[in-house]
Amino acid sequence: MKTAAMIQTYPADITLDRELLARAIDALITCSQACTACADACLSEEMVADLRTCIRTNLDCADSCGATARILSRHTGYDADLTRAHLEACIAACRACGDQCEQHAGMHEHCRVCAEACRSCEEACGELLTSIA
Amino acid sequence: MKTAAMIQTYPADITLDRELLARAIDALITCSQACTACADACLSEEMVADLRTCIRTNLDCADSCGATARILSRHTGYDADLTRAHLEACIAACRACGDQCEQHAGMHEHCRVCAEACRSCEEACGELLTSIA
Amino acid sequence: MKTAAMIQTYPADITLDRELLARAIDALITCSQACTACADACLSEEMVADLRTCIRTNLDCADSCGATARILSRHTGYDADLTRAHLEACIAACRACGDQCEQHAGMHEHCRVCAEACRSCEEACGELLTSIA
Amino acid sequence: MKTAAMIQTYPADITLDRELLARAIDALITCSQACTACADACLSEEMVADLRTCIRTNLDCADSCGATARILSRHTGYDADLTRAHLEACIAACRACGDQCEQHAGMHEHCRVCAEACRSCEEACGELLTSIA
Repeated sequence: MKTAAMIQTYPADITLDRELLARAIDALITCSQACTACADACLSEEMVADLRTCIRTNLDCADSCGATARILSRHTGYDADLTRAHLEACIAACRACGDQCEQHAGMHEHCRVCAEACRSCEEACGELLTSIA
Repeated sequence: MKTAAMIQTYPADITLDRELLARAIDALITCSQACTACADACLSEEMVADLRTCIRTNLDCADSCGATARILSRHTGYDADLTRAHLEACIAACRACGDQCEQHAGMHEHCRVCAEACRSCEEACGELLTSIA
Repeated sequence: MKTAAMIQTYPADITLDRELLARAIDALITCSQACTACADACLSEEMVADLRTCIRTNLDCADSCGATARILSRHTGYDADLTRAHLEACIAACRACGDQCEQHAGMHEHCRVCAEACRSCEEACGELLTSIA
Repeated sequence: MKTAAMIQTYPADITLDRELLARAIDALITCSQACTACADACLSEEMVADLRTCIRTNLDCADSCGATARILSRHTGYDADLTRAHLEACIAACRACGDQCEQHAGMHEHCRVCAEACRSCEEACGELLTSIA
């Protein structure tokens, strides 16, 4: 990923801590990809009917992380309230998806890996949020 | 748009008010498109240097509305907390973008039309949020 | 939708036919929403295991239409080759999804409505593509 | 990123070469983030008026790479034609954006880093495309 490198090249000031920011963006795009893949892996499981909620939560989390990664990648005209609100919503999505995937982590390896991605993302976004508040 | 028709065909219960839901989704995808187009129209203005914050807020609002429209389009495994958090974040994005665009509404017709889309979206999402809380 | 209104306010020349363009963008965002909703409706069907391919194609079509709608909403620095390549890919996604949904249209009303959205989108994008080529 | 790990956990066959696939997805999400950040960095440059086409191409490339990364992350109900069409469109977007950014690479470090991301992505997608054709 080029996230940290891109942050270093931004031609104006960045209000947020650059290291926490890069870590959060990296965790968000990792989580978005893992959730997209986990939804698809769940869809191919024989027991797909038992994984409906997991698939739905995966899809929501992928969308939420994707949008938040883009918003955090912009620094021009920074708005702390907007950043905070989107981090909070995204943390809720990661927590819900991590909880869902964890329930099937012993049975489905993709849910185990995806739960890890969700927990890391929740944590990285939480640390960034704490640094703003 | 087929939003209301698709809601009617959902094979299980939907917790949210179907009319408020359809109105919110329609407003969200309308706003997402208007913001994408407004960012591009601002970019082509001679005074683009004065429209940086407007462009940035447009892009954020487009992403936030796009993700929220998708999340609201799913009803399986409904999670009220997730819905609420994303509506709140999206309302903040619409308000910020509406405020930005309104400042240039007298000068740039695209900002006037986009501000309308943002206000409608903020209102439709606000009504849906009130119905959940 | 504000698509046609936003096109009218663009401050520079637009190479494409404005009416065909507005129709294509409207069809794309309608189709993207319908496909997102159809994937979720399929997920809630008792026979979800028989709808795996339909769900996957729905999700792809939603993503392809969403990206193409954004690309067509930008006119600054227009690049005919880029526009053409994305229209072609999106038409392929709409055709595949329309074919899938049509197979279940008699059984699942959401697939019937979604197939309509896919066919309309394929047609609107095809007309725009023809006007460029 | 968890891309390779997620591919290993997919419960059914994957038609594509797993290594080429993981490399393409990683390059796509890296490029999508770099392009989003580059658009924003260009927007903050004093000479933003000279970077309009670069910003527009960045935004298109971010959208195209984002959608293609999601499509490649799904293996259920694989459709070679769809995959090919989206890889081709995305390669065109990466090439256009790489060309744009390269023109300003000597002047703007963000364009230099972003051009690298575009070239890597074009190459990784090209190799995957060759392996399908």
